[in-house]
Amino acid sequence: MQNSRITLGHGSGGKLSHDLIESVFISQFWNDISARSDDSAVFSLGNDNGNIGDKQLAFTTDSYVVKPITWPGGDIGKLAVCGTVNDLAVVGATPLYLSAAFVIEEGLLLTTLTEVVKSMAETAAEANIKIVTGDTKVVERGSADGLFINTAGVGVIPSGLRISGDGAKVGDAIILSGSIGDHGIAVLSAREGLVFANELKSDVAPLNHMISAMLNSGSSIHVMRDPTRGGLATTLKEIAKQSKVAISISEEKIPVKQEVTAACEMLGYDPLHVANEGKLIACVAREDADKVLDIMRNSGYGQEATIIGEVLAESSAMVMMKTKIGGTRIVDMLVGEMLPRIC
Amino acid sequence: MQNSRITLGHGSGGKLSHDLIESVFISQFWNDISARSDDSAVFSLGNDNGNIGDKQLAFTTDSYVVKPITWPGGDIGKLAVCGTVNDLAVVGATPLYLSAAFVIEEGLLLTTLTEVVKSMAETAAEANIKIVTGDTKVVERGSADGLFINTAGVGVIPSGLRISGDGAKVGDAIILSGSIGDHGIAVLSAREGLVFANELKSDVAPLNHMISAMLNSGSSIHVMRDPTRGGLATTLKEIAKQSKVAISISEEKIPVKQEVTAACEMLGYDPLHVANEGKLIACVAREDADKVLDIMRNSGYGQEATIIGEVLAESSAMVMMKTKIGGTRIVDMLVGEMLPRIC
Repeated sequence: MQNSRITLGHGSGGKLSHDLIESVFISQFWNDISARSDDSAVFSLGNDNGNIGDKQLAFTTDSYVVKPITWPGGDIGKLAVCGTVNDLAVVGATPLYLSAAFVIEEGLLLTTLTEVVKSMAETAAEANIKIVTGDTKVVERGSADGLFINTAGVGVIPSGLRISGDGAKVGDAIILSGSIGDHGIAVLSAREGLVFANELKSDVAPLNHMISAMLNSGSSIHVMRDPTRGGLATTLKEIAKQSKVAISISEEKIPVKQEVTAACEMLGYDPLHVANEGKLIACVAREDADKVLDIMRNSGYGQEATIIGEVLAESSAMVMMKTKIGGTRIVDMLVGEMLPRIC
Repeated sequence: MQNSRITLGHGSGGKLSHDLIESVFISQFWNDISARSDDSAVFSLGNDNGNIGDKQLAFTTDSYVVKPITWPGGDIGKLAVCGTVNDLAVVGATPLYLSAAFVIEEGLLLTTLTEVVKSMAETAAEANIKIVTGDTKVVERGSADGLFINTAGVGVIPSGLRISGDGAKVGDAIILSGSIGDHGIAVLSAREGLVFANELKSDVAPLNHMISAMLNSGSSIHVMRDPTRGGLATTLKEIAKQSKVAISISEEKIPVKQEVTAACEMLGYDPLHVANEGKLIACVAREDADKVLDIMRNSGYGQEATIIGEVLAESSAMVMMKTKIGGTRIVDMLVGEMLPRIC
């Protein structure tokens, strides 16, 4: 510890990030609310502070350091709104208010900043969230890389609704809203100048309207997560750990675009570990799965939604995948760093 | 505009920051809540979202890029908690929940991060606010300067209370909680290796308990602000503009420590423009001013509280200062950048 230093892997969203959070942050910041380890903190204002009614609030934050700041299908502004909107939506909250804080490197073109801010405003309008407060800091040339954005968000959860990573039930269908790895590979292609026969676009999108339709159907939705840094594999492993269950998925059911497969083969990446910014994983009671699938497929951002596996009765927190060639593979969190600064 | 670039002055908190906010951010993000231009956004959840009662929520954010990350009297962790706690408290909110997001440069010592996190936890305990959600990003060596922290905060405002920069009333006493410039000069001394005969400590402190005592006294407190970036001058000018009044202050009433005066004379700074991180400005009905002063002086962070001026009936938004030598000086916002990366 004495001479240990932070590495890029500590920001991967995978195993090293989890270790850092446990050893440094949770040991100092632990409380009954942070302990839930979901994408948003969830709390009621009713007990200590008088009549705020029976609803709960959700509150979350993310900083965005993606490089470059624009790529096919998105930019840092759109990402900064979608990431926080989605973290609110997956705990069942209606996103209401957003903060936006900018750390800008001296010398950034004002036109670049203006484009990013416009993109944030457009995405916020689509997601129906208001940007209500903010901050601007400027650091000297060389002290930051262009532009970093932090957003925090506040949302309201309807009475009685509880969606958490610890809610997966044995027999639940695991639904994935579409193809994986699009965001990570699209950003990488912009960064490294990779060219595909067909342009690959990032999937960055606000999922709150689709999620709202899913919840309004009255279906038994037990867990929702958006598989960002660390990819599908890391998110499924988190759910298995929080819910103390095993998860089985089938490789042939997981949609992966040809360009993503090709890039991953070339670079030695596993698509299961590549970041997504507009995808949803849901654990849904088996009897409601078809209804939920229909709703997702009728939404703009879930047309390829499909069942990729199920929740099993084991407390091993293991995630297993039936491979295309008929074997079984253990799926684990991302270890180390694969694609730094992807979000 | 085409080739305009961001300068350090855009992060000063003064005139250029205000211009940037108006031209780039407000034009895209304007709404009924952001329009109030206070240190926190204030909103009710009652109208659109059912029974949340009659209380209002406050929500605010700040990113901290201070350099170096420790200095006499504080560190970036303490600052990141106090800054956001104070922004909530000055709109009359009880601070409840905090987010903490870290952008870390690869290579930062884990022991350094741990010390900062410990300092955040201690300050949060003093302020009685819970850190409930967070984020960690790591960027390559050279892409950020050590450590940047963003905090966002949520608080609850008691029914019927409205404290805003637009509330100053003619005849109000202007109360300042203590000496100005301590934070800015303490950070500068750590950065540049300045040595004073007596060590100057930053004033960084959570003011919420003092403010809570002031509000609980039932006094007519019309405006509260903490004069951070841009200093006392910029904050008074903001209040004068928002409230459409003139403000008159007296130079001899404003406490300035000898070390701050000396450093400012040497460097050509105006103490009125130097940042504070544990000071409060309040506009209070004249008949309640002595009661409020007593409460502040009995609090740990307001022992030197004093009346420095009054609100006048003019719509010029002018701030005037009677100087020690008997003249009158116009006080204006900081223009350009004096001390970059002070918070």
